[in-house]
Amino acid sequence: MSGFSIRNPERRIESNPFDVDAWNLLLREHQSRPIDQEREFYESLVTQFPNSGRYWRAYIEHELRSKNFVEVEALFQRCLANVLNIDLWKCYIVYVSETKGTIEKYRETMAKTFDFALEKIGMDVLAFSIYQDYIAFLKKVPAIGQYAENQRITAVRRVYQKALATPMHNLDTIWADYCAFEKNINMTLAEKLIAERGKDYQNSRRVEKDLQSMTRGLNRQAVSVPPKGTASESKQVELWKKYIAWEKTNPLGTEEYGQLARRVVYTYEQALLSLGYYPDIWYEAAMFLQEASQTLDEKGDVKLAQALKVECIGLYERAITGLMKESKLLYFAYADFQEEQKKFDAVKEIYNRLLAIEQINPTLTYVQLMRFIRRTEGPNNARLVFKRAREDKRTGYQVFVAAAHMEYNCMKDADVAIRVFKLGLKKYENEPEFGLAYADFLSNMNEDNNTRVVFERILTSSKLPADRQIRIWDRFLDFESCVGDLASILKVEKRRKIAYEEAQKDLGMNHSMLVIDRYKFMDLMPCSGDQLRLIGYDALKGNDTPSTSTSSNPKPVP
Amino acid sequence: MSGFSIRNPERRIESNPFDVDAWNLLLREHQSRPIDQEREFYESLVTQFPNSGRYWRAYIEHELRSKNFVEVEALFQRCLANVLNIDLWKCYIVYVSETKGTIEKYRETMAKTFDFALEKIGMDVLAFSIYQDYIAFLKKVPAIGQYAENQRITAVRRVYQKALATPMHNLDTIWADYCAFEKNINMTLAEKLIAERGKDYQNSRRVEKDLQSMTRGLNRQAVSVPPKGTASESKQVELWKKYIAWEKTNPLGTEEYGQLARRVVYTYEQALLSLGYYPDIWYEAAMFLQEASQTLDEKGDVKLAQALKVECIGLYERAITGLMKESKLLYFAYADFQEEQKKFDAVKEIYNRLLAIEQINPTLTYVQLMRFIRRTEGPNNARLVFKRAREDKRTGYQVFVAAAHMEYNCMKDADVAIRVFKLGLKKYENEPEFGLAYADFLSNMNEDNNTRVVFERILTSSKLPADRQIRIWDRFLDFESCVGDLASILKVEKRRKIAYEEAQKDLGMNHSMLVIDRYKFMDLMPCSGDQLRLIGYDALKGNDTPSTSTSSNPKPVP
Repeated sequence: MSGFSIRNPERRIESNPFDVDAWNLLLREHQSRPIDQEREFYESLVTQFPNSGRYWRAYIEHELRSKNFVEVEALFQRCLANVLNIDLWKCYIVYVSETKGTIEKYRETMAKTFDFALEKIGMDVLAFSIYQDYIAFLKKVPAIGQYAENQRITAVRRVYQKALATPMHNLDTIWADYCAFEKNINMTLAEKLIAERGKDYQNSRRVEKDLQSMTRGLNRQAVSVPPKGTASESKQVELWKKYIAWEKTNPLGTEEYGQLARRVVYTYEQALLSLGYYPDIWYEAAMFLQEASQTLDEKGDVKLAQALKVECIGLYERAITGLMKESKLLYFAYADFQEEQKKFDAVKEIYNRLLAIEQINPTLTYVQLMRFIRRTEGPNNARLVFKRAREDKRTGYQVFVAAAHMEYNCMKDADVAIRVFKLGLKKYENEPEFGLAYADFLSNMNEDNNTRVVFERILTSSKLPADRQIRIWDRFLDFESCVGDLASILKVEKRRKIAYEEAQKDLGMNHSMLVIDRYKFMDLMPCSGDQLRLIGYDALKGNDTPSTSTSSNPKPVP
Repeated sequence: MSGFSIRNPERRIESNPFDVDAWNLLLREHQSRPIDQEREFYESLVTQFPNSGRYWRAYIEHELRSKNFVEVEALFQRCLANVLNIDLWKCYIVYVSETKGTIEKYRETMAKTFDFALEKIGMDVLAFSIYQDYIAFLKKVPAIGQYAENQRITAVRRVYQKALATPMHNLDTIWADYCAFEKNINMTLAEKLIAERGKDYQNSRRVEKDLQSMTRGLNRQAVSVPPKGTASESKQVELWKKYIAWEKTNPLGTEEYGQLARRVVYTYEQALLSLGYYPDIWYEAAMFLQEASQTLDEKGDVKLAQALKVECIGLYERAITGLMKESKLLYFAYADFQEEQKKFDAVKEIYNRLLAIEQINPTLTYVQLMRFIRRTEGPNNARLVFKRAREDKRTGYQVFVAAAHMEYNCMKDADVAIRVFKLGLKKYENEPEFGLAYADFLSNMNEDNNTRVVFERILTSSKLPADRQIRIWDRFLDFESCVGDLASILKVEKRRKIAYEEAQKDLGMNHSMLVIDRYKFMDLMPCSGDQLRLIGYDALKGNDTPSTSTSSNPKPVP
């Protein structure tokens, strides 16, 4: 790192836009200049790190120093709901308390602000000062007459109670304050009330201790950047997952499922501030919301159930308009969620938004959309999706395979299926995987001669490089080994050998890599796992192993 | 390493029988003791490293020191043909020349020994001293009369010629000797002969230089040990492969394909002395022998073609009786080779030998044997193989799948296929992969209701752990997504969700891992490759990815 710091931070960011250290250096420079010239910088900062509370706060505080309240207001509007960062929210409270002093309904606004903040981030282990400030604020509210006095006491007591039920640091201070507060009001009543609250307090204190050891090593300040797979990144993910799993065990022992769910959701939100580039965390957060909503529905809490559903939609929207904007996984999960809710138009809109992103290979999306339309609207409309996919230049061969299988498996029409395959073969004769899917289909139908014709067709198209031909020869041989007589097997074997020799000229290819597919059956391999690795078998299977769908697109999208 | 050497070598070998350094320490100790007490040690040494020329030589030289010629003879018998190590062979020549001096036909024996050695290792780049000794030996043979003298000159000249056509170190010495030799015989004839040989010599010298740079870094002394996948191991493999590939380019520019082939085979043999635990090197050596034999056949050199075939069988036998004794890959390749030669009985014997090894999962072997028998003997006998497999307690479910597919695809009888699947399901209802193969089969036949029945059957057997159920639920949902109506889809979806929740209780399982299979189609994935790795998708797919077949055996073989 130290070697890097000699280069100027702009240059570093140019070569790696996620170089957080370089951004921090820049930030320090820009913080000392007038805000009028710095908005462009801050905008690039929060565009690059849209879920970083720290950077939003730096931007806002800079505006605040020049008392640009309109700008500040607009900035809070943009980040507050999405970024549940405790320091950002504390900054918001300070802002409201300092700037709204002159307005008519100041006290009401302030109380609302505090309530809003507590609802959003009151569960945070660092929320102590908010509770403390709120209580201090309430205590200072002038109350004239017994009625008003009683109202104020109730209000203060409510905040104390909420605080004491929350595992957070410095809770002992609030506890001492609370005891003094009650004793000050009514010595005799105090004993009973304190005893009652004491249980909550002890419980929270215990959980706070567990939480502290549970989150040891967790870096809550980390900014979301695309992971590089380093050990320290994995460690953070592991810690967050452990923390979330622990929250799911209901450490507070609450009987209110809603409260438990809220705490878990809050933990997910906190995790996403640092792990915003992990689709699995987004997905699991959404799944949890869905499950929690369902559980609440079953328990009869329709209102909270509905609220969590709305929150779930919010989470999905935040994902696909934010850091996960290219994650098909989250689009599909979102679509499935809406399908479950029978919001079919919403589902279509989700698929269409994904299809509208030019640089994302749309093939898998068309496959999913086609299946969805068949389920909900029937075969004719599903065929229209297939038509639409065919007209999209970015589409890969897989959609033809999906369409053909739909015709055969759902509409039970093998002839149409074969017509779809034939149509596809004209377009994708250089895609061995397409040819193989076609041949597999025919072979499954026991159409042996037609299977042979397809094999011959893809092999004699001759536009395939030798190494890709090999896999087809292996499958052809496999097919003949299964159905053919010895003569036809040997004939294929001989031609395959020539292709092998061609492929061997290509450096790095060797017989062994190529032969393993020939001898394997289902998960049974002719070598040990170690041996396969040594032979480089995985490397060859590049086409089969998980890869970005784009990479398998025959015509790379610009 | 130095930290290790304090422990005594026996202990080290106990914990790692392939600790070559420890064996070397032991060897040094044992070399100073009387051989009578040391045979047990040497036997364990050559058993552990059966293709190490150095260890065989150490054993033999120890016996030689006590003049135990009978034992020495027996040891040479055991190793000489299999271990083409130049130092071992030089030791053999010395042994013959020193011990056979008294026998009647000493000279004839010696000449035969030299000729035999040159045939086997005369191509070695270190063979210089053998040629030199042979020439010196021939020159010393007393020749009385002009005829005998001429015969001797011819014999010497023949060895010179052979040497000069071989790229090896110190060739210039032989060249100078040769020139002197010819000039000594006949000054006028010498010029012509020297000019002729000169071309060979220059050519060999050039190739020897190339060879030297080609093999730089190659450790020919390395003993074969099971690879650990270290960088230095990979480097050696790479160097050997480069060397072999270079020999295949015919660097000597010979027009005799047979000579080229012999050199390549010799290089493979040398590689196998160090890389004896790499099945791919064995396999490629065998493939090369097969191809070379075929090429020679086509060129009309039937004799050498036949010799290489015999050599190929020898190589396979050496592999499967030696370091590759558990490599199914080599057994199968050997069987295929014999099948091509139409040696069907030999094929059966090979499969039977593999099946006889108790600790090797026989499932894949039965699958291959069944297919072979169907090809060569027809369906009835193939069914007998299936019967035999069923009676073997070690057999896994895959053989039922193979048999069912054979019935359907080859015998075109779907009813029998389904009977096979039904039979299998009774035995393997806890094998989700078997159930899935059955369901896939039915689904391919558009037997929707029966497919559902199978899904229900495997899912309600309930003996499956939650994580394994998930994959079946995904496939069930996939099936319904494809053929079912919305109601049946949602019904499956709901039940799947419960299974998901169960699976999640199992630590380390998460929704994301499980959902990817649901959204993928063919090679299209809903996430980027990097994301999949981060999510740990590969790890979950443990069941699908290459593994030793033993690990997937439901009932581990003792």
